[in-house]
Amino acid sequence: MDFKETEQKVLDFRDERNWKQFHEIKDLLLGLNIEVAELQELFLWKTNEQQTEIDHEKIKDELADIAIFIIYISRHYNIDLLKAISEKLDKNRLKYPVEKSINSNKKYTEL
Amino acid sequence: MDFKETEQKVLDFRDERNWKQFHEIKDLLLGLNIEVAELQELFLWKTNEQQTEIDHEKIKDELADIAIFIIYISRHYNIDLLKAISEKLDKNRLKYPVEKSINSNKKYTEL
Amino acid sequence: MDFKETEQKVLDFRDERNWKQFHEIKDLLLGLNIEVAELQELFLWKTNEQQTEIDHEKIKDELADIAIFIIYISRHYNIDLLKAISEKLDKNRLKYPVEKSINSNKKYTEL
Amino acid sequence: MDFKETEQKVLDFRDERNWKQFHEIKDLLLGLNIEVAELQELFLWKTNEQQTEIDHEKIKDELADIAIFIIYISRHYNIDLLKAISEKLDKNRLKYPVEKSINSNKKYTEL
Repeated sequence: MDFKETEQKVLDFRDERNWKQFHEIKDLLLGLNIEVAELQELFLWKTNEQQTEIDHEKIKDELADIAIFIIYISRHYNIDLLKAISEKLDKNRLKYPVEKSINSNKKYTEL
Repeated sequence: MDFKETEQKVLDFRDERNWKQFHEIKDLLLGLNIEVAELQELFLWKTNEQQTEIDHEKIKDELADIAIFIIYISRHYNIDLLKAISEKLDKNRLKYPVEKSINSNKKYTEL
Repeated sequence: MDFKETEQKVLDFRDERNWKQFHEIKDLLLGLNIEVAELQELFLWKTNEQQTEIDHEKIKDELADIAIFIIYISRHYNIDLLKAISEKLDKNRLKYPVEKSINSNKKYTEL
Repeated sequence: MDFKETEQKVLDFRDERNWKQFHEIKDLLLGLNIEVAELQELFLWKTNEQQTEIDHEKIKDELADIAIFIIYISRHYNIDLLKAISEKLDKNRLKYPVEKSINSNKKYTEL
């Protein structure tokens, strides 16, 4: 399965329900945040040891929900997500040159 | 370009800087949220008309930053993201049958 | 009832359960976000008209949950929240002088 | 200084700039989230030791920004925030009875 195919499945799911009418950008942005919070909630208060007991299936489902919103938003703006990632990495390479950022957890503005 | 290739680029970027040592899950979850907020900030207070003036390149970059964190987290848990999306859509089809959810913005618990 | 009294009730609730041991800052920050998302979820996809049907009690409860986390975090850093607000408004007055910012939804960096 | 007075200062700041016109609830909810992320960003990737070096003034300012949004939203819905907190604590006491929740980081649904 490739990305285009997955993306199309997501859009088909939306369009079969005629949901595009509700997809105002500010709602998509709220929805994205809500899904992120659902992923976060799986880990809240958990120690490193307790984290090993988290249901792997739930992590998978919450990550998928976030990704679905990312696909909705990127298609809303006609953005090729894989190309966007690749081009952002190019920019990040300039902000975080290996020799300066290796083994460092500093922001590029502090390097 | 396919997804596996993009994913590998993201991981290579991380590993060239030896950053995995900093990728505790709670930091990845905070980072994900911070990137979502940066995307949201582009739209804050903007009317529909003003939204058309938002720099498309910035939307693209922020979406990419979010996607990079999703890839970090999914690889952290050895999750195949495309498969996860596809399987989550299967679950969503049961929660949101077309006949009940078409043209509805209700949550499945209220359908 | 005044703020100090409310704040103390929040801390007493925590201390009666001996929960300070779990209150690592990154968990408090995740918890804060999760509560914000629960408030957001009440409004997700809702039109202006549908928003009038949202249970007022739920809005109240979610706002309280967020405020409780704010109190936890501010006490964690020994910050006087009311003083902090007042001093931040002083800074904002300089960033957003009335004559420049009146009737404007622009960020101070764009004024 | 008491809470009512602080709250009034926040509303005065808004009204001197005639900003209520922009305060659609979904924007207030996005703004709240953006401020939470700015607080989170101060702590991102930081070890416990590095956290001691974070500028205390910045934590104070970000907490104030979040509180300002909470005040905007609570006044938008005519909610008495201190009363809301107090009433929510009453509900939480039922969900988290001391004898069951003491020294436990479990959610009430798992107690």
